[in-house]
Amino acid sequence: MEFRELLIGLIIILLAAKLAAEAMERLGQTAVLGELLAGVVIGPGVLGLVRETDVLHALAELGVLILLFEVGLESDLAKLLRAGPQAILVAVVGVVVPFAAGYALMSWLGHPGLVAVFVGATLTATSVGITARVLTDLGRLHDPAATVVLGAAVVDDILGLLALAVVTGIAANGGVALGGIALLAVKSVVFLVVAALIALRRAPLLVGLIGRLQARGALVVSALVFALAAAAAAEWIGLAAIIGAFAAGLILARTEPHAQIEDRIKPVADLLVPIFFVMVGMKVELSSLNPFAYNAQLGLALLLAAVAVSSKLVAGLAVYHPGTRRWPVGVGMVPRGEVGLIFAGAGLAAAVVAPDLYSALVVVVMITTFVAPAWLKLLYRPVVARAV
Amino acid sequence: MEFRELLIGLIIILLAAKLAAEAMERLGQTAVLGELLAGVVIGPGVLGLVRETDVLHALAELGVLILLFEVGLESDLAKLLRAGPQAILVAVVGVVVPFAAGYALMSWLGHPGLVAVFVGATLTATSVGITARVLTDLGRLHDPAATVVLGAAVVDDILGLLALAVVTGIAANGGVALGGIALLAVKSVVFLVVAALIALRRAPLLVGLIGRLQARGALVVSALVFALAAAAAAEWIGLAAIIGAFAAGLILARTEPHAQIEDRIKPVADLLVPIFFVMVGMKVELSSLNPFAYNAQLGLALLLAAVAVSSKLVAGLAVYHPGTRRWPVGVGMVPRGEVGLIFAGAGLAAAVVAPDLYSALVVVVMITTFVAPAWLKLLYRPVVARAV
Repeated sequence: MEFRELLIGLIIILLAAKLAAEAMERLGQTAVLGELLAGVVIGPGVLGLVRETDVLHALAELGVLILLFEVGLESDLAKLLRAGPQAILVAVVGVVVPFAAGYALMSWLGHPGLVAVFVGATLTATSVGITARVLTDLGRLHDPAATVVLGAAVVDDILGLLALAVVTGIAANGGVALGGIALLAVKSVVFLVVAALIALRRAPLLVGLIGRLQARGALVVSALVFALAAAAAAEWIGLAAIIGAFAAGLILARTEPHAQIEDRIKPVADLLVPIFFVMVGMKVELSSLNPFAYNAQLGLALLLAAVAVSSKLVAGLAVYHPGTRRWPVGVGMVPRGEVGLIFAGAGLAAAVVAPDLYSALVVVVMITTFVAPAWLKLLYRPVVARAV
Repeated sequence: MEFRELLIGLIIILLAAKLAAEAMERLGQTAVLGELLAGVVIGPGVLGLVRETDVLHALAELGVLILLFEVGLESDLAKLLRAGPQAILVAVVGVVVPFAAGYALMSWLGHPGLVAVFVGATLTATSVGITARVLTDLGRLHDPAATVVLGAAVVDDILGLLALAVVTGIAANGGVALGGIALLAVKSVVFLVVAALIALRRAPLLVGLIGRLQARGALVVSALVFALAAAAAAEWIGLAAIIGAFAAGLILARTEPHAQIEDRIKPVADLLVPIFFVMVGMKVELSSLNPFAYNAQLGLALLLAAVAVSSKLVAGLAVYHPGTRRWPVGVGMVPRGEVGLIFAGAGLAAAVVAPDLYSALVVVVMITTFVAPAWLKLLYRPVVARAV
């Protein structure tokens, strides 16, 4: 019976995703916005057609891995490295300003320092998935601003990780374990440097090995195993698995059959990626938007959301390169997605963030997640030819 | 942490599957034999590298669905219907003879009648997955014998289902609920007739709808949703989900973009199908082959396996059509796979089949599963060009 539930869940998710994506595209919006809304509608908040099982959750996680792998495959490492200093600056500004703004707002509202720290930290972490997907949908992955956003998102992930370690350390024992945090920072940097070196020097070797395989599907399976291995390695180090998948994509992008790999990965991505975004939408609790149920928390949520959006836009101002547009960079850094939820959840688990504040933070994450796709689409108005 | 376990499990499964498939192909064997052996090696019986989680199980089930969908897509309904009477005869002989032989052997060995009935029933059900995969690997899906085997496997599934209903009915209350069984038979036939009618009359309509979708991945997602829906419908009726997926493939095979669908489904199949066969291999308990641990049961297992193989070969004798070879049909009906295990498991659950007899039946299923791919390969000796 459980398998039948999975079949029906997949049918509903994929059907809702496709229909909503189709509707959004006809309205001139991006497909991902449709998928997010489809999730809200079929999720527990509205129709309650699908419940999040372990299997669906795993498929969604594999979906976002494959999305970032695909984005890596279509990216140019050399361009990304050249945009490095620019991306680092954007990431640092995009972490410091939202943290300071969130901290200041909460302190000003009279909340204790630790609560203000958690809220500030929640506002820092950019979710690269949404932006990467929107840029893919719009066919703008090769825009200079897209390169800066992707690079900044990787740096942001590392900074966010360090911030999470600091914040949970403070919550757990009132202090910061500097040694552990330094180790995490070193491991993250080593991972990225090793990945870049492999990409620059050893990529042809990998493909030589793959090329010798004769069995059917050798290329797609080897490429995916490589992506999964990089994701597992990143996760083992303490980085997000999606960063590993992105690195794997960057490496294979420099190999001769990368177009062939892209072509074969595409149908797999077409199936799994929408599951991720629908499930993100399913996590939205519409009840937290009810102004009567949560008295003043909705006002706080809207205030925090305004801070969350505007403070990330400031990161766009850190763009000094003349050929790169500032607005797409700023807006591209806005979505917080699942990373923000992890912060808020850690605060909830540590009993620092009260349940109603947690709900407010969920609303903030929601707003940033839904605002960014529509806004980016607006910024890239001249409509681009659609892919099949 | 659970996600990391999934990543590592997938890496090991896919890597082992590909390497073993590669090795087997170089030895002149079929890829599926390598995948089955890879499962035995990494499974709990030998190295114990991967344990069967819900998520892996679900991926494997989706894999075999997609395999049968793919086989359906590559099959020709008209040819299958023309081979209908021939296939029905093969299926009936392939159910009656193994049942009678298993029943007779067990009765002769002095087992009670009910035990003999369960063992006989276990020997009836052909697992179409193995044979379909071998024929795909060999590029012989369009051979007249392949058409007969596929048709017979569908009929066999229905007959097996009825046999299971009869046998569990006897075990539960000593009698047979003829009404329920007749209903099951009617539902199964109606399902297949409706599927055939849709295929013959309404397939272009479906594609017209799909063709209007613009979003990326619309074709692969719609095709897969259709397959999942047919599988869920079949399961809901009481048929195996794979029969539904096969029917969906047959229907879409008659649509104009079927080659495009095949092309897009292929990478998904390349990833998921090996997971199914590796997991089948993982279920093998090598300890049941230890002659010291199970005293006389290994002898019984080998005797039953000989009966299981030879009695299905008799089904090949039911081929009366002059252009169709008898041996590939007989050997194609040999593998019992998961269907046999369901029978044996039902007997175990009803406390009719003792644990040591269950182990013997697992060995029988194993032997039929491993014998068929090598034998079919031998029958189709003149080597066929391999796919990439």
